[in-house]
Amino acid sequence: MQEILDEIAQTMAAEIDRGKVADYIPELSIIDANQFAMSVALPDGRVYSAGCAEQLFSIQSISKVFSLTLALGKLGDAVWANVGREPSGDPFNSIVQLEHEQGKPRNPFINAGAIAVVDAIMMGHEPKECLAEMLQFVRYIANDENIHIDDKVALSELSCGHRNASLAHFMASFGRLHHPVDKILGVYFHQCSIAMNCQQLAKSGLFLVSEGVNQSAGYRVVSAQRARRINSLMLMCGHYDGSGEFAYRVGLPGKSGVGGGILAIAPGKASIAVWSPGLDTIGNSKLGTLALEMLVQRTGWSIF
Amino acid sequence: MQEILDEIAQTMAAEIDRGKVADYIPELSIIDANQFAMSVALPDGRVYSAGCAEQLFSIQSISKVFSLTLALGKLGDAVWANVGREPSGDPFNSIVQLEHEQGKPRNPFINAGAIAVVDAIMMGHEPKECLAEMLQFVRYIANDENIHIDDKVALSELSCGHRNASLAHFMASFGRLHHPVDKILGVYFHQCSIAMNCQQLAKSGLFLVSEGVNQSAGYRVVSAQRARRINSLMLMCGHYDGSGEFAYRVGLPGKSGVGGGILAIAPGKASIAVWSPGLDTIGNSKLGTLALEMLVQRTGWSIF
Amino acid sequence: MQEILDEIAQTMAAEIDRGKVADYIPELSIIDANQFAMSVALPDGRVYSAGCAEQLFSIQSISKVFSLTLALGKLGDAVWANVGREPSGDPFNSIVQLEHEQGKPRNPFINAGAIAVVDAIMMGHEPKECLAEMLQFVRYIANDENIHIDDKVALSELSCGHRNASLAHFMASFGRLHHPVDKILGVYFHQCSIAMNCQQLAKSGLFLVSEGVNQSAGYRVVSAQRARRINSLMLMCGHYDGSGEFAYRVGLPGKSGVGGGILAIAPGKASIAVWSPGLDTIGNSKLGTLALEMLVQRTGWSIF
Amino acid sequence: MQEILDEIAQTMAAEIDRGKVADYIPELSIIDANQFAMSVALPDGRVYSAGCAEQLFSIQSISKVFSLTLALGKLGDAVWANVGREPSGDPFNSIVQLEHEQGKPRNPFINAGAIAVVDAIMMGHEPKECLAEMLQFVRYIANDENIHIDDKVALSELSCGHRNASLAHFMASFGRLHHPVDKILGVYFHQCSIAMNCQQLAKSGLFLVSEGVNQSAGYRVVSAQRARRINSLMLMCGHYDGSGEFAYRVGLPGKSGVGGGILAIAPGKASIAVWSPGLDTIGNSKLGTLALEMLVQRTGWSIF
Repeated sequence: MQEILDEIAQTMAAEIDRGKVADYIPELSIIDANQFAMSVALPDGRVYSAGCAEQLFSIQSISKVFSLTLALGKLGDAVWANVGREPSGDPFNSIVQLEHEQGKPRNPFINAGAIAVVDAIMMGHEPKECLAEMLQFVRYIANDENIHIDDKVALSELSCGHRNASLAHFMASFGRLHHPVDKILGVYFHQCSIAMNCQQLAKSGLFLVSEGVNQSAGYRVVSAQRARRINSLMLMCGHYDGSGEFAYRVGLPGKSGVGGGILAIAPGKASIAVWSPGLDTIGNSKLGTLALEMLVQRTGWSIF
Repeated sequence: MQEILDEIAQTMAAEIDRGKVADYIPELSIIDANQFAMSVALPDGRVYSAGCAEQLFSIQSISKVFSLTLALGKLGDAVWANVGREPSGDPFNSIVQLEHEQGKPRNPFINAGAIAVVDAIMMGHEPKECLAEMLQFVRYIANDENIHIDDKVALSELSCGHRNASLAHFMASFGRLHHPVDKILGVYFHQCSIAMNCQQLAKSGLFLVSEGVNQSAGYRVVSAQRARRINSLMLMCGHYDGSGEFAYRVGLPGKSGVGGGILAIAPGKASIAVWSPGLDTIGNSKLGTLALEMLVQRTGWSIF
Repeated sequence: MQEILDEIAQTMAAEIDRGKVADYIPELSIIDANQFAMSVALPDGRVYSAGCAEQLFSIQSISKVFSLTLALGKLGDAVWANVGREPSGDPFNSIVQLEHEQGKPRNPFINAGAIAVVDAIMMGHEPKECLAEMLQFVRYIANDENIHIDDKVALSELSCGHRNASLAHFMASFGRLHHPVDKILGVYFHQCSIAMNCQQLAKSGLFLVSEGVNQSAGYRVVSAQRARRINSLMLMCGHYDGSGEFAYRVGLPGKSGVGGGILAIAPGKASIAVWSPGLDTIGNSKLGTLALEMLVQRTGWSIF
Repeated sequence: MQEILDEIAQTMAAEIDRGKVADYIPELSIIDANQFAMSVALPDGRVYSAGCAEQLFSIQSISKVFSLTLALGKLGDAVWANVGREPSGDPFNSIVQLEHEQGKPRNPFINAGAIAVVDAIMMGHEPKECLAEMLQFVRYIANDENIHIDDKVALSELSCGHRNASLAHFMASFGRLHHPVDKILGVYFHQCSIAMNCQQLAKSGLFLVSEGVNQSAGYRVVSAQRARRINSLMLMCGHYDGSGEFAYRVGLPGKSGVGGGILAIAPGKASIAVWSPGLDTIGNSKLGTLALEMLVQRTGWSIF
């Protein structure tokens, strides 16, 4: 495994077309595009890494997997009252679909859907309490108390969050949100600003590898069925309007973030985190996808 | 003329299907649907009326004609940088078109367009100053110092303004607004809450009857060309997605509001105001349209 | 009047940016873009012209005014069962709106609507009979037996008519057409291929100038109300998604065709035909619109 | 396995809400909704069945898996020049997406995409030859010479194929089809009219179970990578706008048809065919989906 990762990291270092760093969030636009890291966590606790796997980065939309998991734990299937389970066929921040479907987002991994999930989690609590709970949950599934929120990134997002505010107010106009829009967005922007390194991120996905159990930590996080269902949602909707392409090329459930990270799950085999800040035109890490494609070709881990 | 108006009012009193009062703004939903009023103002200053023509009502979107006129006066054609001049083919509060056209609203008479016009008028001023200027302008064109804003209605709109907030944030995300969204909306909701009666409203349209001049008041408001152009926009876009139907049946430039009022202009002939709070499914006054149709049949005032 | 036209023609001759000749119909793509002609027909029968006003051109979509008039004469308001009366807010050949509104076209002047009108006119007859009737009707309203169909253009359209075939089959799938699609399209393409010169075209609009009566010919074509309504449809929908702009700049009911012709009506004043084959990006004659704008500025014929 | 199937069949027999038989194709609308069959084919050649597993039915859109496989074999990745690989987020016969993406269908499993695939396969041949090749290929992968096309169903589809004709002409208008529309549709309708029973259908999917090899027949059909990729497309796009739901509930690559059949693949485990003619609102077999959900719960065959 270490050999495979080293080879991938070497190949990636030589890539010239590295995509474009997200430029609409000021704090993210200043990241150096030449960085690359990859970690593979096995159920037994071993973690293999290559590249700068201890370098923190903003997990952004990958956090949507964790907030969905938390929401399902707190509310069960009631989560699905205000968010769907279908691929959207639209960019991550599209509002067209919302108008056609009465303010109900297509899935929990596009922005509108993730905002609805935050609203579901809040349950009347203040943003601060809600964030504390969320952070505690992420530390729990990653079995790592050293995970924090990068406040500078959160503030940076707030300053340019008109599109997300538009999505939230739109849903609110259909009565789909139950807390003040500014409070929901406050939580949402902070959730997206959780900082992790590849090793932490890989470990945080272990419960999805082993039917809901983080084996190395020794506890169950969700039921086997729920783990499978979260995996299915990651495969169908985890890469916005590039989900089909990711399934075609990589063949693993995965969730990307505009910070350049991707979390991918090989059920029964491993949890994989990869990070390279340059994005393709759809907003998914360019080298991250390529690296996962290589890894799957070497390991035969495709679920298909 | 008085005879025609009396007959129309009598016919309207007998109508059973009076449409449905707008229910999404609390203060408007409690208005009695059985009311009807109509006033015809002639260039020489005479005003004929029937029904409760001194009853105040919320002019709502009719105010968009006045704010556009004010904006054109202050900025000229620069107004058109962030708002178009085409019918929208969509409901008054649709956001789909905004996404397809990079946040630029189709015309100044749909909500998004009117919000962009307010932003243009503000020019760095505070909402209070901006509203004072707007109110002064409306009093000026109507030549009536007794026109006020109904604060209760404005507050009522604020409490349920998520859809408009969504439209505003959406435009802001494309860099099309230059003031804080909450301040723009504050002005917008107050502008929509201007209260007038039919006599006042009819008089306020006189400058559009006589090529830009309010003859009875004795002053020019806009140039002849600008008056014609505002009339053309009223005809093309004044009744949202029912503009074609209004042109077909009535044949006059007109602007409706969800308060149940309509201002219609017969160029060279008269300015007409009609009010009946019940709306058709598109959001235009049901009896108001019918009354205008009758009036035009009697007078031959169609522009076609 | 002659002086005004001469001056306009001179100005147009000097214009450098003449737009782009329609290139999707082979026979139209070979027309010389440098041509220009304009004719003004007065109710008393006088016709003033400038430029190559006897040069035949393909009237294309202008024919939709004549087929609608014929359909209204044959079926009355039943025409409106399968076609609406609102501006579309979309390009002339868009199919999106059809899907959103169950195959019912927004108005009779976009392609889908005109195809529905042809279907209404056919009433079980064969294409040949239907075309003969249509041609006879156009000759009748223009009071000119020398109007023909250019078969070469019709064939040229058939060879590239996939988009219109798609629109027709789409409406048929909703049960909105009552004749075989290929027969309807045969009539439609031939109707669009009627050839006229500016003098003939201007005269063909006279019935819309004088409340339904062709005064110089001495007969009534439609009722006064119907003439006004056709004018209103021309204003609202006559220039596709550029109708608002045309109303704003010219202020007259008008219908354009991709052959570069425009028929405009100044109610009570004159019928105007203009031709210049270069189109703007929306598909309306670039110099034709400019020439009408000049004419209206000189004559004050705007309906607003 | 036999026990599981018997229990599923028994449960299905007791279901009251069986969905609605497709009514837009006359020949399909007369099928008895009370039928149910299920077959599981294992790589070693064993086939377990329950219900009327020898009853022929129209495979309809399931044929799109076979035509795509054939097209990839003939043209390789050139197939993707005119068809995408993303879920559509729209109904199976939507045309909106085509207009927004220049006539390129989102994936090979919606109608437009399958029509584009047929066009790719034809390569200048006549419909007859093309159909013969297609039928031969289906017999080859199912290792069964007794598979036929139901001409009555094909004719029935032709008689009501306006929507598909519209899709085809639309793509043709963008230059995306290279054969006459009527010939392409002829092949397409016949391909959809292939009749199979559950046993045959289950066997036809065996090459997708074992990395491209039909082990029981003893030959390779496609490469391992291609088999995985076809599976990924089935998962992402195989159930139209219900693909997310199918992945969530069943967790297997699958392709449904409006005839009520579903082919599902458990990689490395089994190929499963199920048939029940009643459909849910999206057009997928209601009991078929339910039966697969039960099967996966019993066997643990979910890929997630």
